[in-house]
Amino acid sequence: MLELLSEHACFGGVQRFYRHASAAIGLPMRFSAFIPAVPAGQTLPALFYLAGLTCTEETFPSKAGAQRAAAREGLILIAPDTSPRGASIAGETDAWDFGAGAGFYLDATEEPWSKYYRMFSYLLELHALVLTELPVNGAKVGIFGHSMGGHGALVTALKRPDLFRSVSAFAPIAAPSRCPWGEKAFSGYLGGDRDAWKQYDASELMLAMQAPFPGGILIDQGLADKFLEQQLYPEAFEAACAKAGQPLDLRRHPGYDHGYYFISTFIDDHLRFHRAQLG
Amino acid sequence: MLELLSEHACFGGVQRFYRHASAAIGLPMRFSAFIPAVPAGQTLPALFYLAGLTCTEETFPSKAGAQRAAAREGLILIAPDTSPRGASIAGETDAWDFGAGAGFYLDATEEPWSKYYRMFSYLLELHALVLTELPVNGAKVGIFGHSMGGHGALVTALKRPDLFRSVSAFAPIAAPSRCPWGEKAFSGYLGGDRDAWKQYDASELMLAMQAPFPGGILIDQGLADKFLEQQLYPEAFEAACAKAGQPLDLRRHPGYDHGYYFISTFIDDHLRFHRAQLG
Repeated sequence: MLELLSEHACFGGVQRFYRHASAAIGLPMRFSAFIPAVPAGQTLPALFYLAGLTCTEETFPSKAGAQRAAAREGLILIAPDTSPRGASIAGETDAWDFGAGAGFYLDATEEPWSKYYRMFSYLLELHALVLTELPVNGAKVGIFGHSMGGHGALVTALKRPDLFRSVSAFAPIAAPSRCPWGEKAFSGYLGGDRDAWKQYDASELMLAMQAPFPGGILIDQGLADKFLEQQLYPEAFEAACAKAGQPLDLRRHPGYDHGYYFISTFIDDHLRFHRAQLG
Repeated sequence: MLELLSEHACFGGVQRFYRHASAAIGLPMRFSAFIPAVPAGQTLPALFYLAGLTCTEETFPSKAGAQRAAAREGLILIAPDTSPRGASIAGETDAWDFGAGAGFYLDATEEPWSKYYRMFSYLLELHALVLTELPVNGAKVGIFGHSMGGHGALVTALKRPDLFRSVSAFAPIAAPSRCPWGEKAFSGYLGGDRDAWKQYDASELMLAMQAPFPGGILIDQGLADKFLEQQLYPEAFEAACAKAGQPLDLRRHPGYDHGYYFISTFIDDHLRFHRAQLG
């Protein structure tokens, strides 16, 4: 059951904000949905967009400028929040890179996070929910994201290519096991056993793939991104793809940084990429 | 002298944020500038965008999605803040529709506002400043805005058509003398003499025009805008234009509201309109 919080006409369609009770999380969750004008009875392909640290379900629709191309390409855009909210765990809002706003799209196994911080399961729940509640063609759902959300998109698609048929990312945390953001999050949510981290590390998952992800993968990375050297490691994912025989288009853009002015510049390319992949 | 606060690559150009000492205001002011890639020694047409209540110089570049079309059309986009900041006037930040964030693009004459709240003079100062500091073609500068900023754009263009050669607006406060927002602002900034209000009321200015504004005027208005009936009065400006022989394209859009999802839907039309007007 979806509660419609607000709705805004946009490029001939509607930008909506929803709240719903999440079984996976055990708390109310919010997400946004851009829905182009759809003839009655028709369904459209959909893209999940996973946002980065500190973001919410509103960041993508308000800053990325994706609705223009989504209306043109006939794509529904789904953007979940980046973590549970209001779990009332001590320290939950103390840091901007762990806890609230920093769910890392994984199912925590460490107390006290394991009760509510189950964002990987939430994405699967949300996938099922939008298939029943919105005019989404379930055979044509892709996923993309930015930074922490780029990590989430890659991991989710590699783990569930049956549900997410196309994947791309902006400046993803591509090898979280080896960067400070990832080490902090994985230690806190998953504990000290680094073997357990591999299931949420896109570069490790790629090395373990039995077969390439169907279709290619598109990644855009700005070369003036201040997090590139310490946190992102696209070269690790690139090497893993080469080893696994995975087609990857990793585009490096001189001058571009980590923010939404970078994302908005290349957002149309990503929507066209997914539209082509989803057929 | 401009202090560059930050710079972000965007659509092949740069989105910049500046601070500078303003002589008109007597305090530091901020503005943003999107500058497409410009061949050395060349200048480009420019558009001033005036934002609405509660906004800052960051609202337009982060939410309107204008840079794509600006890069394509070769337009510089200048967005000032919406009021002085830090004037330390008692009550300055108590209300969202008066004081900080609500400068109404006029020169206040009432104490204590008259010392710093001189946004009309500031716009003229900023016009001169960007001509000397940025690659702007001074013969090709237009102005547009939203809500309070739509009011500001119409008033500024009608008062100074020598400086601003094209004008458009999204959901402008088109007859501020007769709406609650305008009555509160004009009473506070200009005092009780309603004759003094006319110089900052676009509908009154239009009625007093000796000759039509060169070229037409474009206004977009959403019909699901919750402020339409009480605050905006586009029909008053429409009637004034009819009386003055002013060509006006007032487009009424069913379903659209007052926010940036509405603005982003029609922003490209405005950039094309200005580009054509500026020649």
